[in-house]
Amino acid sequence: MINVAILGYGTVGGGVAEVLKTNAASIAKRVGEELNIKYILDIREFPGDPFENIITKDFDAIVADADVKVVCETMGGLKPAYDFTKKLLEAGKSVCTSNKELVAAHGPELLALAKENGCQYLFEASVGGGIPIIRPLLTCLTAEEIGEITGILNGTTNYMLTKMDKEGSDYADVLKEAQDNGYAERNPEADVEGYDACRKIAILASLSYGQTVNYEDIYTEGISKITKEDFDYAGLLNRSIKLLGFCKEEGGKKYAMVAPFLLDENHPLYSINGVFNGILVHGNMVDDVVFVGRGAGKLPTASAVVSDIIEEAMNLGKASDIEWVDEKLTLDDKNELKFKYMVRVSGNASDGRFAQVFPGAEELGAEILAGEYAFVTPELTEGEFLSKYATLSNAIKFIRIK
Amino acid sequence: MINVAILGYGTVGGGVAEVLKTNAASIAKRVGEELNIKYILDIREFPGDPFENIITKDFDAIVADADVKVVCETMGGLKPAYDFTKKLLEAGKSVCTSNKELVAAHGPELLALAKENGCQYLFEASVGGGIPIIRPLLTCLTAEEIGEITGILNGTTNYMLTKMDKEGSDYADVLKEAQDNGYAERNPEADVEGYDACRKIAILASLSYGQTVNYEDIYTEGISKITKEDFDYAGLLNRSIKLLGFCKEEGGKKYAMVAPFLLDENHPLYSINGVFNGILVHGNMVDDVVFVGRGAGKLPTASAVVSDIIEEAMNLGKASDIEWVDEKLTLDDKNELKFKYMVRVSGNASDGRFAQVFPGAEELGAEILAGEYAFVTPELTEGEFLSKYATLSNAIKFIRIK
Repeated sequence: MINVAILGYGTVGGGVAEVLKTNAASIAKRVGEELNIKYILDIREFPGDPFENIITKDFDAIVADADVKVVCETMGGLKPAYDFTKKLLEAGKSVCTSNKELVAAHGPELLALAKENGCQYLFEASVGGGIPIIRPLLTCLTAEEIGEITGILNGTTNYMLTKMDKEGSDYADVLKEAQDNGYAERNPEADVEGYDACRKIAILASLSYGQTVNYEDIYTEGISKITKEDFDYAGLLNRSIKLLGFCKEEGGKKYAMVAPFLLDENHPLYSINGVFNGILVHGNMVDDVVFVGRGAGKLPTASAVVSDIIEEAMNLGKASDIEWVDEKLTLDDKNELKFKYMVRVSGNASDGRFAQVFPGAEELGAEILAGEYAFVTPELTEGEFLSKYATLSNAIKFIRIK
Repeated sequence: MINVAILGYGTVGGGVAEVLKTNAASIAKRVGEELNIKYILDIREFPGDPFENIITKDFDAIVADADVKVVCETMGGLKPAYDFTKKLLEAGKSVCTSNKELVAAHGPELLALAKENGCQYLFEASVGGGIPIIRPLLTCLTAEEIGEITGILNGTTNYMLTKMDKEGSDYADVLKEAQDNGYAERNPEADVEGYDACRKIAILASLSYGQTVNYEDIYTEGISKITKEDFDYAGLLNRSIKLLGFCKEEGGKKYAMVAPFLLDENHPLYSINGVFNGILVHGNMVDDVVFVGRGAGKLPTASAVVSDIIEEAMNLGKASDIEWVDEKLTLDDKNELKFKYMVRVSGNASDGRFAQVFPGAEELGAEILAGEYAFVTPELTEGEFLSKYATLSNAIKFIRIK
């Protein structure tokens, strides 16, 4: 029997307990021993809960208990998760987590601590919820040089964008609906401004490059300015709008970015709808590989955490071997990246001004809103585009095309 | 330096050499040592080939060379691959392969031999080409009880079906085109009759159930009877036709089957087009996870083989721990499975006979071919459907709906 502790009995922590209980027999068969939840740490009371008698507020007792070999941290946030994780790793206990904030902020330091103390730090659930992505990246696509990772990494915003696309709803309405049914937080900033996707692509980029990509360095745009008219224009191009996080290596330069993009139906992420996430990995030999699944939710996320618990339980005493050093990678300027752009401007296309600023740009035919029109530019570097765009006196907005 | 041998210098074997050469630096960094191709076994001559001086016809020399630790078998077929693999494993060399025929026919025996001799037998490339599927199934989705695996597992037939769907081409034309551009063999039977997909689902089912599913026991229908009119009828239902292999566990019963199915656009495999493969895994906690990528082709398949070479090189002396015992699993009768069916019959719908045989069936409105019509049945067990279908004197054909 291997003893496990769960830190944080919220949605994901509760899911971990449920997965360990529901699939106890098949998990025990796989590990070769039964996994026993010895403690669940939470500051709240859970009267009547099936795990009531093992719920504790005493973190120190967990650290001090030599019987506890594996701990999953499903508290979220930096405090006190960071401090707790360090103490557990220093005590030689393997830790796994769904906490993307903590992994993005302190991943390499915690990995080094795990290595020093002959234990492991795993975080499959920090990106893509239930989708296996970190382990496949580290253990499957090993023959590849990864040129690009592009993902729909946030289920809340993908749910909202899908609703706007399929039902013609406006942003405020879908946000309210997402909040009402629990897909979005009351303060939705982390999702809708792209901060969540940014931390996830920072983790994937760091693992892919083996150095630390600071999430603060990643240019990040959310979806809060996307309107239903944007979808109407996208429709004229047979495209949808998706919030993408990506990192890309090209000619020795390394880029990362989060922003809404117009995708056409041939893009492998076009058909990833609703709360689903999809992550496209482009390798120099295998071409495109796409991983799709539920990017959030109690049980899918818990399933990924439990896969880490299982790996750690099967490898007690084995030190972490994940390559991610605490050396900052300076990203190259995203203004060097090339895109086409869909630009909305006020006025009338017949004045032809857009084509003077953007030679070769093509107007979008149908009128969506009176007094404005839109056009698509040829491929330009972001820097060149932005300087030209700044000269348009009638600019309304632009969206990048991928 | 770790020495490697390649058996069979055909498309995949050549790809393995190319991947090892092109990505030598990143692979060496990952393994911690350089991988050196010491021998390439082939009965043919390759004058002027960059690897000419290490190409040999002498298999025994490879077995006898204690310096060779890892061998990839990319010969295909059972003879002499089966015999060679046994000799290599008995000599304690780890072997990896893209050979689905061999894995489907002798997988558990070869795994047991690897375990006995303290080495490994891996076969990531035998299913799904470059798509990581076997390793994710064994090492990522470990917290799951897998209820179903459904895949588009053959790139040739998916290419053909996609052409028929998008371009309205007929079977014979797309087959000829697939043959002309090298996607289909001159003798296309293994692909178009579903035999290739059958071996792949047999491997996935065996790994999922941990016992041996004999491929001969899997009911298998190919695509050679699919016509462009079938796609016209499918279009009336807003569906496409895909060749699926699946295994499914339900109420303690276990099923497996290969057949063309009508899929609607909400099915996660609907948008997997052309030579791409897609594999949907349904777990009881994570719900649906889908893996998509190039299911065939020189470099994608070689990439998967090389990921096995890397794993074996990093784990020399570690015995195989894949759970797949040589105990036959008796599949349950596929006639117990429930589907809806699209049925084409001659005559005129106004005679109403179809509704007498299949109460609740719905006619498909538009006329596709003079003198015939089609209808969709309610959900029925396959057994019930087939017995009723046998009573239709005017039956032309049916296709299952998923």
